[in-house]
Amino acid sequence: MASTQLAALRLQPLQASAGVPLSQCRKHVYTGVYMPGQKAYNAPLAVHQILRLASLQSPPQQLKEGSKSLLGSRSPSSHRQPRIRATASDAEPAAPSNLIGVHWLTWAGGLSEEECRKAIDGSAKLGYDLVEVPLGDPDAVNVPLTRRMLQEANMAATASLGLLPHADVSSDDSEIAAAGEKLLEEAVKVAAGIGATIVTGITYSALHKYPSGPTVAGRRNSVVALKRIAARAADSGIEIGLEVVNRYESNLINTAAEAMELLSEIDHPGVMVHLDSYHMNIEENSAAEAVQTCGDKLRYVHIGESHRGYLGTGSVDFPALFAALAAARYRGPITFESFSSRVVNPQLSNTLCIWRNLWEDSEDLAQHAKAFIDEKWNP
Amino acid sequence: MASTQLAALRLQPLQASAGVPLSQCRKHVYTGVYMPGQKAYNAPLAVHQILRLASLQSPPQQLKEGSKSLLGSRSPSSHRQPRIRATASDAEPAAPSNLIGVHWLTWAGGLSEEECRKAIDGSAKLGYDLVEVPLGDPDAVNVPLTRRMLQEANMAATASLGLLPHADVSSDDSEIAAAGEKLLEEAVKVAAGIGATIVTGITYSALHKYPSGPTVAGRRNSVVALKRIAARAADSGIEIGLEVVNRYESNLINTAAEAMELLSEIDHPGVMVHLDSYHMNIEENSAAEAVQTCGDKLRYVHIGESHRGYLGTGSVDFPALFAALAAARYRGPITFESFSSRVVNPQLSNTLCIWRNLWEDSEDLAQHAKAFIDEKWNP
Repeated sequence: MASTQLAALRLQPLQASAGVPLSQCRKHVYTGVYMPGQKAYNAPLAVHQILRLASLQSPPQQLKEGSKSLLGSRSPSSHRQPRIRATASDAEPAAPSNLIGVHWLTWAGGLSEEECRKAIDGSAKLGYDLVEVPLGDPDAVNVPLTRRMLQEANMAATASLGLLPHADVSSDDSEIAAAGEKLLEEAVKVAAGIGATIVTGITYSALHKYPSGPTVAGRRNSVVALKRIAARAADSGIEIGLEVVNRYESNLINTAAEAMELLSEIDHPGVMVHLDSYHMNIEENSAAEAVQTCGDKLRYVHIGESHRGYLGTGSVDFPALFAALAAARYRGPITFESFSSRVVNPQLSNTLCIWRNLWEDSEDLAQHAKAFIDEKWNP
Repeated sequence: MASTQLAALRLQPLQASAGVPLSQCRKHVYTGVYMPGQKAYNAPLAVHQILRLASLQSPPQQLKEGSKSLLGSRSPSSHRQPRIRATASDAEPAAPSNLIGVHWLTWAGGLSEEECRKAIDGSAKLGYDLVEVPLGDPDAVNVPLTRRMLQEANMAATASLGLLPHADVSSDDSEIAAAGEKLLEEAVKVAAGIGATIVTGITYSALHKYPSGPTVAGRRNSVVALKRIAARAADSGIEIGLEVVNRYESNLINTAAEAMELLSEIDHPGVMVHLDSYHMNIEENSAAEAVQTCGDKLRYVHIGESHRGYLGTGSVDFPALFAALAAARYRGPITFESFSSRVVNPQLSNTLCIWRNLWEDSEDLAQHAKAFIDEKWNP
């Protein structure tokens, strides 16, 4: 039986046992990944979405465990054929399965029609399952166009942003904190519109080299705002990620342990931790320790080299990271991220201090990364 | 024959063959390391200084080669007994020998008398050969006091700073560039006053997360200013280092290759490259490649962990770095650098984004680092 058929058959019992209304499931399945004019929709992602919704509504433990085998699809080669592995009801334990993604900025600095085509079709052509859309300026996204293109290419999407110094939920200035919450809210709306399932990044503070450490009042503002945003996002089937970044990009969360602490204060099941190999290489004792610290709260992973260029050409210990993810039975997306002054988003490139060319050819870079991940990720 | 006696005997022939006037040699030997009330001065450092002066004045190749065995002293344990190894005139090739240093900020955030005592005596007690004095604000240094304390403790000194956004030789605003040159000049004066032999750090731009990339005019200003400063510094027997730092601390030099390029434009023998394992872990393909790129222009090395805490607890591959330094027959100082919010310099800590405690006890940290370097550095 084809994997997509298998998944389709399982949708109804899954949503029923998860206690998620079918109407809500369908909404997400179809807005997110239904492909008009094609015979299949992205079944693994549909299942992923139902299970995520279920998780947000506190499903029975049995389902939660079963869901681990269904949180994505991995293309073992550049040929994109979504796969569904065994479920919890099968006799054998489920084999891991992950969506493999690529960051938009690998392809394009902006979100014009031409850039959408480049990023989405380029990613699809190389066998990626998802593309991470930058939402630093949510108004810049042409929602219907982006959604249509994602659907046509059978690509899943996630979205990411870093808040801004003047729109920062971790500010102790209530106006700036409110502006940060508004920006997050807009990002969630746009993410839902394009069919993304995750909004992650520096959602808890500004993407910014802070001039001083965090304040108690600012931290409280961040916690309160994220709790509210997480509740609203869950209504749209969207999870909020806390990306752990290095000290130059935030003063609030630089380690997995710090993320877990904030997460426990936020106390909402729709918030999760997002680790990134580039940042871990700077801040963590080891990637293994960071992965272990997060446990099942780790639900998004960025794969980036130490200098943000070609994978395998820097100092990140990828075998150790992949071994840690395998040991943790990590099932979430694994998204490649890289930056070079070759592809420039005027806002993001300067904020991220991209001063030199680490690569010239987006396609060669992304193809290399896909092959690298396929080769190393053997859980 | 005791090593100090051996070195003393060699001072005169060395200075003669290097073509350095004896008066100038003596000035540096005695202002830098002479210890009234003690029977010996720091002979290896004295020789180091003569040879450096010689090098600035283009010595014969023969002397340059011979000098490699004399550029410092390494204490093999916490017992501080300077050692002179074989010279070029000996039958066997010289064994490497390096001064092992520690950054002031390991001990204290400021430069008061109490803080001087803590930093200098603390370093000496643990067997370090030199201490790196922060010169971000040269006026804050009590020159006679610091010099006296260094002499009393038989400690060599180097000095470091990062220029400031409003005093930045790489600015294309000529007033800001001139203010940067003035700050460097003051730093060199203070360094000479306390007996330091090196002024290094971000001497070529501001220590700053730049809002955009470098400009052609700014780069030119930096080159011109450094050429002038290097000439003035050489008159005081001081070398200028270009510390290669990560993208968040400068937009001009993030890799060894970029440093070598700027160095060739400056074109003065008194300017050298300073590599740092913390920064290399972010920016370089590998420490080995970086060390190789610099060749004999590498004359200062910072040893720091990936998160700037305890050595060996992060992701820096120290065995590979030390192997590369040994292969390059590196003879310059090796200085441990670490930062924690436990020891705070209000200016530097925020600029370096030190948001968390990576350690509590300066002495334990520095002792651990000394033992770590002694164990790993076996060239």
